[in-house]
Amino acid sequence: LLGATGAVGQRYITMLSGHPLISLEVVMGNRSANKKYGEAVQWLSAEPIPEEFAAKKILESSPESADGCDVIFSALPAHAANDIEMEFARAGFTVVSEASAHRMNSDVPLMIPEVNAEHLKLLDLQRRNRSWKGSLVTTPNCTVTGLAIVLKPIVQNFNCSRVIVTSMQAVSGAGFPGVSSMLIVENVIPYIEGEEEKVARETTKILGKLKDGGVTPVEIPMALSCNRVPVLDGHLETLYVELNERVTPEEVAGTLDSFVGPPQEMRLPTAPDRPIIVRKEKDRPQPRLDRLSGSVPGMSVVVGRIRRGIDDRSIQMTLLSHNTIRGAAGNAILTLELMARKGYV
Amino acid sequence: LLGATGAVGQRYITMLSGHPLISLEVVMGNRSANKKYGEAVQWLSAEPIPEEFAAKKILESSPESADGCDVIFSALPAHAANDIEMEFARAGFTVVSEASAHRMNSDVPLMIPEVNAEHLKLLDLQRRNRSWKGSLVTTPNCTVTGLAIVLKPIVQNFNCSRVIVTSMQAVSGAGFPGVSSMLIVENVIPYIEGEEEKVARETTKILGKLKDGGVTPVEIPMALSCNRVPVLDGHLETLYVELNERVTPEEVAGTLDSFVGPPQEMRLPTAPDRPIIVRKEKDRPQPRLDRLSGSVPGMSVVVGRIRRGIDDRSIQMTLLSHNTIRGAAGNAILTLELMARKGYV
Amino acid sequence: LLGATGAVGQRYITMLSGHPLISLEVVMGNRSANKKYGEAVQWLSAEPIPEEFAAKKILESSPESADGCDVIFSALPAHAANDIEMEFARAGFTVVSEASAHRMNSDVPLMIPEVNAEHLKLLDLQRRNRSWKGSLVTTPNCTVTGLAIVLKPIVQNFNCSRVIVTSMQAVSGAGFPGVSSMLIVENVIPYIEGEEEKVARETTKILGKLKDGGVTPVEIPMALSCNRVPVLDGHLETLYVELNERVTPEEVAGTLDSFVGPPQEMRLPTAPDRPIIVRKEKDRPQPRLDRLSGSVPGMSVVVGRIRRGIDDRSIQMTLLSHNTIRGAAGNAILTLELMARKGYV
Amino acid sequence: LLGATGAVGQRYITMLSGHPLISLEVVMGNRSANKKYGEAVQWLSAEPIPEEFAAKKILESSPESADGCDVIFSALPAHAANDIEMEFARAGFTVVSEASAHRMNSDVPLMIPEVNAEHLKLLDLQRRNRSWKGSLVTTPNCTVTGLAIVLKPIVQNFNCSRVIVTSMQAVSGAGFPGVSSMLIVENVIPYIEGEEEKVARETTKILGKLKDGGVTPVEIPMALSCNRVPVLDGHLETLYVELNERVTPEEVAGTLDSFVGPPQEMRLPTAPDRPIIVRKEKDRPQPRLDRLSGSVPGMSVVVGRIRRGIDDRSIQMTLLSHNTIRGAAGNAILTLELMARKGYV
Repeated sequence: LLGATGAVGQRYITMLSGHPLISLEVVMGNRSANKKYGEAVQWLSAEPIPEEFAAKKILESSPESADGCDVIFSALPAHAANDIEMEFARAGFTVVSEASAHRMNSDVPLMIPEVNAEHLKLLDLQRRNRSWKGSLVTTPNCTVTGLAIVLKPIVQNFNCSRVIVTSMQAVSGAGFPGVSSMLIVENVIPYIEGEEEKVARETTKILGKLKDGGVTPVEIPMALSCNRVPVLDGHLETLYVELNERVTPEEVAGTLDSFVGPPQEMRLPTAPDRPIIVRKEKDRPQPRLDRLSGSVPGMSVVVGRIRRGIDDRSIQMTLLSHNTIRGAAGNAILTLELMARKGYV
Repeated sequence: LLGATGAVGQRYITMLSGHPLISLEVVMGNRSANKKYGEAVQWLSAEPIPEEFAAKKILESSPESADGCDVIFSALPAHAANDIEMEFARAGFTVVSEASAHRMNSDVPLMIPEVNAEHLKLLDLQRRNRSWKGSLVTTPNCTVTGLAIVLKPIVQNFNCSRVIVTSMQAVSGAGFPGVSSMLIVENVIPYIEGEEEKVARETTKILGKLKDGGVTPVEIPMALSCNRVPVLDGHLETLYVELNERVTPEEVAGTLDSFVGPPQEMRLPTAPDRPIIVRKEKDRPQPRLDRLSGSVPGMSVVVGRIRRGIDDRSIQMTLLSHNTIRGAAGNAILTLELMARKGYV
Repeated sequence: LLGATGAVGQRYITMLSGHPLISLEVVMGNRSANKKYGEAVQWLSAEPIPEEFAAKKILESSPESADGCDVIFSALPAHAANDIEMEFARAGFTVVSEASAHRMNSDVPLMIPEVNAEHLKLLDLQRRNRSWKGSLVTTPNCTVTGLAIVLKPIVQNFNCSRVIVTSMQAVSGAGFPGVSSMLIVENVIPYIEGEEEKVARETTKILGKLKDGGVTPVEIPMALSCNRVPVLDGHLETLYVELNERVTPEEVAGTLDSFVGPPQEMRLPTAPDRPIIVRKEKDRPQPRLDRLSGSVPGMSVVVGRIRRGIDDRSIQMTLLSHNTIRGAAGNAILTLELMARKGYV
Repeated sequence: LLGATGAVGQRYITMLSGHPLISLEVVMGNRSANKKYGEAVQWLSAEPIPEEFAAKKILESSPESADGCDVIFSALPAHAANDIEMEFARAGFTVVSEASAHRMNSDVPLMIPEVNAEHLKLLDLQRRNRSWKGSLVTTPNCTVTGLAIVLKPIVQNFNCSRVIVTSMQAVSGAGFPGVSSMLIVENVIPYIEGEEEKVARETTKILGKLKDGGVTPVEIPMALSCNRVPVLDGHLETLYVELNERVTPEEVAGTLDSFVGPPQEMRLPTAPDRPIIVRKEKDRPQPRLDRLSGSVPGMSVVVGRIRRGIDDRSIQMTLLSHNTIRGAAGNAILTLELMARKGYV
């Protein structure tokens, strides 16, 4: 694990403690190298640090440190990730990265296991393109994950023409220390650097089709307004979908409710029973109440307020996804579970 | 003033203290009747209660109490407003009401002075329809005000086909005590009872044309998602506008920036120099920083992030309007100033 | 259960779902009578309503409704509790009450099972005094519970002369809807009606000795400053203790850390392994991180920053206790478990 | 002005815009050197940046940059302040510093103009001790200022034996970006590094007597518990004072209410009419409502809840002081005004 002391790094520590398949052997971080993890980290969760990790020494971020490991999870910030992740891939490791640095590369899969499991085939292209002994797989931006999971069954079942989204994002999405309390207390910040471009770009890649070894992005134009709100965890998004056909809210609700993907079929350990939970109450989902819903807390997207838009060719809804679990660590862990089951590791 | 001790009632008290034209003579409220205002009210503002009102005795809400007054401001909740406002109008008073009870009546003007000053002519129809000695004028929902002010110059100048809005509304919009801290601390509530219907309905009436003595609503379909956020004052709204023509963000910014209405031309005391303030920074408007902007604090709508939507026939932006000033007390006071200047009082 | 839909009532519902000894049969509440619990309640927790209660019909608060039950838990507000609780006791029920109405009566035990289990003997006096077929036992104010648990081993082991406390209390301590968001967002309120008197009075009764069938309060003068802070759950208190002897922080820490009471010895189901958890980190306890600590979440008091006061005859510390669990529902349930084991039910 | 872009630096900018005596000529900061102030700063206030400063170029922090100035205000963090402030003093400037680096030096005045104006005489000692052409004056920690102002009239008029304080401090006290939102949202942090020691040490120096050219600290032992709460501005403190004589709350209130110091007598521009405002309401002062009270907003300390302690030889109260105005920039400006009037500049 690279970047182990950050907000997302801590989620990996919690989620991998006691994992049936994955054993986290080495934690790395340059700033805290040689300290004990329990002493270096500003632990953010109410759950205590798992004991087996508290005493672990943090190592330098280099392939030598990871000797004996097969897979590297990277929770590094984008600027740090670029070179170091390639170095690990070159050295023979399978790198599963949270960072934005390589997400849009044409030979790098950008994975949400329920949505685009088949994109792992991009690794064939990657192997041909690059002289790496290992490989590099990425996972999307935390605002993308919930959105793409909800759009997948909609795009699959209906003729979708455009999507308009406003997000209300939690402070943990900016990492730690991230957003200063002096900026966000009793306030909303109507802008997040680079976020809107990333969300549109990554969502259309994820929903894209494999063709001739590469991914052709889905052609659904998207408009986004990303806001930061004083919430700790859980990105809330209002979603307006225009369609080229008549669809009722009930049909959409049914489609979302019954959606499952390969992780559910394969019963992967970190796969929630239902990737999408549809709530019928008029005032749900709410971040504080619903972010840890589902059989694997934080891995389900919760959708509510599914209703008609302006006409019978448009649908509105509100969705919530836990940004550091489904939007980060949990999605990466699930990706590795999928890769293991499919023989990529 | 009816409903003087509520959150909006308190704004009237502050704004009318020292007003050049309007003298607030009587404060009424049934629950606190016969107490001194300063003792009955849970004062919510950092500015102290103006001394002349602190010692005033609160009277029963009845026309007799208002003997000697010409105009009644009503800051009553909808259920209380229905009968009592008509009683005052019948008794000869000009009633300017914040309440939703009568807003959509075909012979009741729903006023934002910069937007639809000419709708005051509905009072002719009202006089014919009703046997009242007085009259009744209403002002819109607090989420409508900012939206309608921004849409007015857009609708006037461009061929606008549909509007999609997500609001992030302050807790003071629900009145006092309103939203329990146990519901909203570290949370967002994705639903406000009745709000979305009201906003669409009232906005299209306000932007409508006078025709044959009545108002024909503008035909612009709107979709709304209204959310409550842990902010004290200031409703933030993301706005997506589809047009039937190509428009650049710069054109829209120029149009908004230069917009003025009758209150500015008449230099009414509560009219801000600019009804719309356009901000160029990428992270504005923010509720805590911008809600009291402008020459009359809280009376200007602040707009930022004006940018292209999905294509060159769509525009996105974020707007902020102070919900208890421009969205309530300030807008009602400005309406009365307009009525006085136009001879309706 | 009386007052089942309130903030504390909801904790009972959660804690009694699946309880090994206590079966919650009837929920009562006058305002919501005849509705289904799941429809009447504004559920405040992220954990869903236990299914067996969601469908239960709420009954009128009267002894007839509780036919077949042995014990009544009361989570009523003080003004409502006074008569109704006596009515139930008179009718033969064992009433365990959260309300302040009867706490200071000389023949009513005010219970924290770890602190004053022997006070249950007051029930003998109560039986003699009153012609009730049942009995009435009370539990203290939510700010008292943590304080009295921490003071118990201090008073037992050291010669304690005075106690000075400042509390920072969560909004849930005021019940639901309780504190308006308009008052507490980005603020601290330095006063809670009646709280400081209650805390001093109840704490000295709880720490008092049984003598001649009655309780003689401990003679330790206390001064309190009670504040409300924008935190959802968990009352934090700074504690300054003056002693008549020299004591080191280490001695106090050891005494607190090793403290156990009858519930631990009897292994009662809701008893935490350790009533007091001593933290050594310099910045703990924190409400959001530590309120659910311990083997029974929310039942342990967490203490930190144990340090010398002004001289070596004074000790300072910070303590945290979950106000609706240890400070209310959990403490009442533990009291009933103790009563059952001791043969009072 | 050194450290101009920080949270306190911004308060200087606002307070010195239009100041009748002081003209702010140069803003310095190493990290932002050569940028325009308006572009380098993350402006935190709702009031806009005064235009005359927005366009000013930030210069390197060196005596050459300040050529032509007489006085340097330093809003630097402690570690940066140590050397650079001495360098300016050596070069002939009068340095008024917010930083903690030199506060406790025996020949450096630690100033609150209402409290210890006569301590400026330490500058004679400083001149003898050091070979500086200029001089160095400091102002205290933001938690000290309110406390020392309130203790001054108490110590002057009554025989005070010990003081016990719990603070609830605003996030702006930690500077910008300071406290991460991920730590403080819906939480209280019961510890602030080094704060408790500073407050006791600095308060007793400020209340000390000049003797033989030095300051003898007042002998009043103090105990402190410092907490961080999710409030933007305004440090709230509960104060417990033990006395060697009987005193009534009314006597204390009268003494505080009538307290004035040299700045009031000299009518210095930044001196509030009353250094201490006594509130009689039972639930005041509150940070959000009262932090900007008084004739010079943020310069008065607001005191409330003055009441008996454990016995008639003890008094309790709650005080509020604006941490970046009276606790920082405002107090430093007032210090310079005093120095100018007394001929030290």
